[in-house]
Amino acid sequence: MTQASISSDLESRRVEELDRLLTLLKPRILQYVESADPQSANYNPTSLGTYHEPEFLKQKILNGDDLAEKCSEDELFNVIDKVLEYSVNTWNPGFLDKLYASNNPIGVVSDIILSMLNTNSHVYTVSPVLSVIENYIGRKYARLFYTKDQETCGGLTFAGGSWSNVTSLQIARSMRFPDTKVKGNQGYKFAIYTSKHSHYSVEKAAILLGLGSENVFKIDVNAVGTMDVAKLRETIATTKSQGYTPLYINATAGTTVFGSFDPFTEIAAVAKEFGVHFHIDGSWGGNVIFSSKYRGRLAGCELADSITVNPHKMLGIPNTCSFLLLPHVAHFQTAMSLQAPYLFHGRESGEENYDLADGTMGCGRRSDAFKFYMGWLYYGTAGFEARVNHAFTIMEYFVARISADSRFELVGSSKENLPQCLQVCFYYHPSCGCDNTKVTRFISRELHKMGKYLVDFSPNADGSDKGEFFRVVFNSPILTNDVIDDLIDSIVKVGERCV
Amino acid sequence: MTQASISSDLESRRVEELDRLLTLLKPRILQYVESADPQSANYNPTSLGTYHEPEFLKQKILNGDDLAEKCSEDELFNVIDKVLEYSVNTWNPGFLDKLYASNNPIGVVSDIILSMLNTNSHVYTVSPVLSVIENYIGRKYARLFYTKDQETCGGLTFAGGSWSNVTSLQIARSMRFPDTKVKGNQGYKFAIYTSKHSHYSVEKAAILLGLGSENVFKIDVNAVGTMDVAKLRETIATTKSQGYTPLYINATAGTTVFGSFDPFTEIAAVAKEFGVHFHIDGSWGGNVIFSSKYRGRLAGCELADSITVNPHKMLGIPNTCSFLLLPHVAHFQTAMSLQAPYLFHGRESGEENYDLADGTMGCGRRSDAFKFYMGWLYYGTAGFEARVNHAFTIMEYFVARISADSRFELVGSSKENLPQCLQVCFYYHPSCGCDNTKVTRFISRELHKMGKYLVDFSPNADGSDKGEFFRVVFNSPILTNDVIDDLIDSIVKVGERCV
Repeated sequence: MTQASISSDLESRRVEELDRLLTLLKPRILQYVESADPQSANYNPTSLGTYHEPEFLKQKILNGDDLAEKCSEDELFNVIDKVLEYSVNTWNPGFLDKLYASNNPIGVVSDIILSMLNTNSHVYTVSPVLSVIENYIGRKYARLFYTKDQETCGGLTFAGGSWSNVTSLQIARSMRFPDTKVKGNQGYKFAIYTSKHSHYSVEKAAILLGLGSENVFKIDVNAVGTMDVAKLRETIATTKSQGYTPLYINATAGTTVFGSFDPFTEIAAVAKEFGVHFHIDGSWGGNVIFSSKYRGRLAGCELADSITVNPHKMLGIPNTCSFLLLPHVAHFQTAMSLQAPYLFHGRESGEENYDLADGTMGCGRRSDAFKFYMGWLYYGTAGFEARVNHAFTIMEYFVARISADSRFELVGSSKENLPQCLQVCFYYHPSCGCDNTKVTRFISRELHKMGKYLVDFSPNADGSDKGEFFRVVFNSPILTNDVIDDLIDSIVKVGERCV
Repeated sequence: MTQASISSDLESRRVEELDRLLTLLKPRILQYVESADPQSANYNPTSLGTYHEPEFLKQKILNGDDLAEKCSEDELFNVIDKVLEYSVNTWNPGFLDKLYASNNPIGVVSDIILSMLNTNSHVYTVSPVLSVIENYIGRKYARLFYTKDQETCGGLTFAGGSWSNVTSLQIARSMRFPDTKVKGNQGYKFAIYTSKHSHYSVEKAAILLGLGSENVFKIDVNAVGTMDVAKLRETIATTKSQGYTPLYINATAGTTVFGSFDPFTEIAAVAKEFGVHFHIDGSWGGNVIFSSKYRGRLAGCELADSITVNPHKMLGIPNTCSFLLLPHVAHFQTAMSLQAPYLFHGRESGEENYDLADGTMGCGRRSDAFKFYMGWLYYGTAGFEARVNHAFTIMEYFVARISADSRFELVGSSKENLPQCLQVCFYYHPSCGCDNTKVTRFISRELHKMGKYLVDFSPNADGSDKGEFFRVVFNSPILTNDVIDDLIDSIVKVGERCV
């Protein structure tokens, strides 16, 4: 046997290589942030970036790559520069499109540390520190919601709010009908209940779990988008009498379109009456828990059997960071565990579990909880509260401004009845008299073309024929009144060009 | 209305802040790699790190944090230093425990860029470049496997091999029995088939999808761990005659314990005979596709209806990076799409889809595909081939060495019939005469205590009473014959202390 020798052109000089790549990368990323920062001398207001067709991007970025041989350093940084140039620069305060905003310095540091550790939070042996941190921060987070279950509550992360919701439905089925783990859904005709304004992941979860979309009962909402609890009760009673097994109610804290909060205390009473699992999808709005001013919106959340909440949205933790919180953290394992002795090597019963994959339907998992721990350490509870309150202040300033202008028409809220979360839905009526959908799409596209603002739009979930409206999310901690004033001016100016 | 002013202590000076944090972080991470690098003057052979109890880590890392107020810079870096110190340093070539190895310089750069972009690969508007890259690299990757479907194949990433497998099962059900999307599993008694050596995620997927674990038929394997196809055929025929609806066969390319490859061509024929979806879980072994020397193990993979394969394992792309590949990429949407007009704003039919979430059961998603693109660009196809071949050379060197020593006993392979993938399973018999489980656990624990080697162990899936054996994975590109020699010496020396 000849001796195997180290493969010389793979990673034999990785320290120098890492040093050199980081040295070349750092000025680029600092400049990327600077260009998006109104405080900076190098601020470029159009740094948000504009719309390009896929074919254009393919040409610019992929052109000529066959990836057969390693690229040169020049080629590498040419690609990196183009990726940065043509991506949406979410550090720009004009990024108002989605329920997340930019990253921040401690978020980047957290991602780098996770990248350096490059491990999986599945078994303690390979992720001892990360597993201890996840259990710690999961419990600390859960304690904010589960005021009555301080000693038993906890949480784990999943790869986004949808997967946390999927997991909550699996826990509901597995805890209440344990025979389904072995036998499947056979013999049950499960029904689940959620409002017409809830996120599509609830319906997808029902499809994935083999319950079927027609067994998702979508409950009416009132004018501001909160669930009609009388209708919920009636629907559960009716379906039960029809032979369904009521399994799960999803209520929403911060709906995707209007940002509304369902009435949790009343829903909890209905869930208790019928013995149904009560889940709160607080992916978006759950983090108002950090604000003493706004957390009243979550009244009753301590009665939920599970809560999804995403630090990557309102708190600015890097994407993706989504927690599923439970009043009894041990139920993750009760619901999920399978024997897999090649991975899980056993523990004493009653011990805290640190082989975290055993409480999930997955195996390997990036430690998203670590980023939340680092952010919480860096900003403190006080910093998260300031961030949430600042965002509400900005949203309220925007509402006050447009309420004073008759060309703007709020949807799902009013000056007296403010939006319940950080997004504002509205129509804008320029002099052209075009229909709402045309105006909304025209203005949002033009704002994007200017490279200044990216805003979203939506039809009404009630199917009303008034057409699509704007949905603008005020979540970035660097938003100021000046940006808001300029946004309103820009909408008005662009609106004049609609014909 | 008073003017809202920017929140001064949140992110108002983020450029300087990022600059400063990166400046403080960089020497730490370079030193972290150096300490684990046998080539470096600052190499510390025990830098892998040793075992600590959770209570010890809680004391060291979490002690005193109440997270109420923001921490100082000193406190922050104190935590970072401890996280690095007490975590497993996977850059150390002694990390031989799991099916992934360390990160590498381009991997760290890729993670930083994703962190800077901080977006979601769910709709094109917010991730134009990342969506174009994912479609491009998903197709390029799929083309390696689907030699007959070059124009239609493609792939998307999911948050780990388990979630790719879950998605494949959902696609199987949804494409063959579309009514299940609406009606659920009612009326069907689905059966799925997988070998006794397959990963637990197949069983978990069946539970999650409401099929039930008792409807997962575990097919016997032969002595080297590959599926007995005659038994498979017989089991499908029997279950069908019993009223089951055969839905899905999972075959494995690189099983978790032995690394064995199932006979895909024969399994495909059985799948075709019964009209069953044929999935390959190639999370671990699928990347032998890059090696002209070893890709023959995948013969028949072009006949699969879906393939899971994880660049984060054999190719060293940062955790997590898992693809599900399909011969017809459009089937992601056919199987998964729901109307969600507040997110997906429509496209012309027949166009390539760039709103990638529409082809998944989730919504927001980190762009793991980008890291694979960057790695492929940086190393080239040639670099991936060299990496895979180097790892096999190291594995074969280890087998040659221990085959010459009667105290070592290979499990699931032999000198003539080498392990099929990069891990080696074996017993070690020191003079103490203790039982295998005791010896294996003792030696692996002692190696870990030395801070030099982290190796895994496993019972045999066939329930044989010979006890637990070592499972050591040779995947790191910086492994050399010297490390292997030292590992063997260390096992022998530590074994002498077993009594």
